[in-house]
Amino acid sequence: MNPYLNETHDPGLRSWVESANLAGTDFPIQNLPLAVFNSPFNEGLPRVGVAIGDSILDITEGWKSGFFEGPADRAAQSCFVPSLGPLMALGPEHAQALRIRLSQLLRVGGVSGQEQEFLSRHLVPRQGTPLRLPVEIGDYTDFYASVYHATNIGSMFRPDNPLLPNYKHIPIGYHGRASSIVVSGTTIHRPSGQTKDDAAENPMFGPCRLLDYELEVGFFVGQGNHLGHPVSIAEADNHIFGLCLVNDWSARDLQKWEYQPLGPFLAKSFSTTISPWVVTLDALAPFRIPAFDRPTGDPSPLPYLSSANDRSWGGIDLQLEVFLSSVRMREEACEPYRVSSGNFRDMYWTIAQMLTHHASNGCNLRPGDLLASGTVSGKTKDSRGCLMELTWRGTEPITLPTGEQRRFLQDGDEVMIRGFCERPGAVRIGFGECRGIIGKTED
Amino acid sequence: MNPYLNETHDPGLRSWVESANLAGTDFPIQNLPLAVFNSPFNEGLPRVGVAIGDSILDITEGWKSGFFEGPADRAAQSCFVPSLGPLMALGPEHAQALRIRLSQLLRVGGVSGQEQEFLSRHLVPRQGTPLRLPVEIGDYTDFYASVYHATNIGSMFRPDNPLLPNYKHIPIGYHGRASSIVVSGTTIHRPSGQTKDDAAENPMFGPCRLLDYELEVGFFVGQGNHLGHPVSIAEADNHIFGLCLVNDWSARDLQKWEYQPLGPFLAKSFSTTISPWVVTLDALAPFRIPAFDRPTGDPSPLPYLSSANDRSWGGIDLQLEVFLSSVRMREEACEPYRVSSGNFRDMYWTIAQMLTHHASNGCNLRPGDLLASGTVSGKTKDSRGCLMELTWRGTEPITLPTGEQRRFLQDGDEVMIRGFCERPGAVRIGFGECRGIIGKTED
Repeated sequence: MNPYLNETHDPGLRSWVESANLAGTDFPIQNLPLAVFNSPFNEGLPRVGVAIGDSILDITEGWKSGFFEGPADRAAQSCFVPSLGPLMALGPEHAQALRIRLSQLLRVGGVSGQEQEFLSRHLVPRQGTPLRLPVEIGDYTDFYASVYHATNIGSMFRPDNPLLPNYKHIPIGYHGRASSIVVSGTTIHRPSGQTKDDAAENPMFGPCRLLDYELEVGFFVGQGNHLGHPVSIAEADNHIFGLCLVNDWSARDLQKWEYQPLGPFLAKSFSTTISPWVVTLDALAPFRIPAFDRPTGDPSPLPYLSSANDRSWGGIDLQLEVFLSSVRMREEACEPYRVSSGNFRDMYWTIAQMLTHHASNGCNLRPGDLLASGTVSGKTKDSRGCLMELTWRGTEPITLPTGEQRRFLQDGDEVMIRGFCERPGAVRIGFGECRGIIGKTED
Repeated sequence: MNPYLNETHDPGLRSWVESANLAGTDFPIQNLPLAVFNSPFNEGLPRVGVAIGDSILDITEGWKSGFFEGPADRAAQSCFVPSLGPLMALGPEHAQALRIRLSQLLRVGGVSGQEQEFLSRHLVPRQGTPLRLPVEIGDYTDFYASVYHATNIGSMFRPDNPLLPNYKHIPIGYHGRASSIVVSGTTIHRPSGQTKDDAAENPMFGPCRLLDYELEVGFFVGQGNHLGHPVSIAEADNHIFGLCLVNDWSARDLQKWEYQPLGPFLAKSFSTTISPWVVTLDALAPFRIPAFDRPTGDPSPLPYLSSANDRSWGGIDLQLEVFLSSVRMREEACEPYRVSSGNFRDMYWTIAQMLTHHASNGCNLRPGDLLASGTVSGKTKDSRGCLMELTWRGTEPITLPTGEQRRFLQDGDEVMIRGFCERPGAVRIGFGECRGIIGKTED
């Protein structure tokens, strides 16, 4: 029996917000993801809301009218700021109490007719409502947790030595740039930088020519840990507030020339896009699965990265898709073209292992810190999470519905990532979208 | 003629705070570094102060009494918060106006007797007054700007390939961890982590055995740049607020096993110590010197990293010293032992080049972001900025005055970094101290 399940996951629950009950919605009452939105009840200024079907409920308005009590009251009170940070900092009990209460408020039969009428007046249509970054991200860490991605990329950068000896022992990660994390929909500037052609004697400076996306899953730290105090693997999930989609835009030509010996830097720091809705770990309970099944011969994780709980429920069955649309496709009203689809279950390391490893040296993780998984690639070609892999460094271009070819991203291309959990007997839980369009090179 | 000089650098200036006129003080009236201190005039809560001799002036108290006007007034007003962030964000004109006014207020003959009496009542002794981190650091970036350090370390990690081909073209850097930056005096926890002995088949997890310091110089971003808008090399100095000392503690055994392919991660993220006093770039004007004189045959920097100004005044003649003291040395009342001394002028890349490179891909730097130089090592053995180099990976231990030997740091060891500028015809400008003591391993 999955220990994470409770009444809020009951597939029989229905919401009085009818759009939440439609098949295929990302945001049924079993989901209840949180975001920072510009609220008309706050003079258009941002605060925290919860998605329900095609609407957003302004939690603060409910709180002001006394709809919450106990830990849920304190949690709802923290939603009046333009950041999920204070709610994240309260820890899992408060987040879960808020979830349970929101589920009650939004379900059929959960509140009186008068209460429902009040709440329905404080719904905002999602369509057209600007969403912000969900939290001020202190530190951003990017992992490298797909063994398929690591092997593919490694074989291009180091043909003789694709997967390094540490890979199966350490959830490899590195620090990313927090300042340039932007919310879905923000235009991405094609970066300039140093590149060096193999044949050239010297490098040159100019616009990136090998611009790529990377499909990733991010997770936010909830309660933090103090400097010098690691987090055990058994406790790790209690430090994870929720998940989002991440596009780790990558300039492959800059990366190749700069990345040794200290890792990627300007090849990544020009922008990272995240989806605005934070799907809580609680919401994903029905989709928790055993961790990656390591092939025979692979080492077991060291004890600090291993617990019975992690082995049983460490993974997440989360389907992921990447769509591309060119300027011409949009002009010709083509649907975005799905270039790949993968699943987060294919990651070699779990989110609990990544977080525990990160804090194992005593490093303090703070509420709102973002950890990302690294590119999610599966075993098959159609599940490769970036163009570098999909087109095998540009040697096998993909063809769009218009007949256009893509080795890497062109100006005007839009990349959209979607993520959702589906399985028989459970209600679909969606992540919404993570979009970005490549603008013109800056002057 | 050095274009940065103005009246505040006049070596003839004397302060009515007598301790500021003593030979050898770090904080004469020509310095005026800023820090966040616990002010008795603010119920012991932190705000911004300026060092003068052995005292700290509470700038806010002066501001409240109308001692400032124009840009200096706005700058002084921003000092009431426990962070230099708002002042940094105002940009160089405000910072310089504040400096000029503080110089007037604190110099002999600069104010009336009554005004001097008021100001002297708002001085706090530096001794015993707790100092905080000077600013909330959004992002922290660590460079690798000493060619001597890069060559030494490279030859240990990659004997066949010590200095990589990109080194003389790119100011190599990587993202560091902002959350674990602590102020001088904070105890450092010896980290645990994965290490793998060369002879062992598998890694193990346990306390770091090869703990090291790294002597670095940090610099804070003043005014920021917007995402997608690089900073030209000619403008770079205008985006740098000031400098501090940095100890980039390093776990060499963790580093060796984890650092490929994405760079150092947990080997560094357990703690970084910075000195509390921010010495403004303005204060360092008399010590600006030409950038590193590249040996014949080295490539010229690409145009985006090169300007006449940078070539003429890009470097800083800043002397640096590292002292070590063991538990036994302190028990036996030995003075801290100077293990090395170097100079920031030996860096291959200037701070302007590092900042411009960082923003060259459009990455936004925010006020208060910290950039650090990487280990400052010179050509000679006694100027190597970390134990890894000084003891050549532990093969040539150093001997302390007690006869104890050190290959790497032991529990209870204290590392102290000092920095100061001195030259004939100018007044000494000091940075104070950057200290840290290695505590016991956490449970």
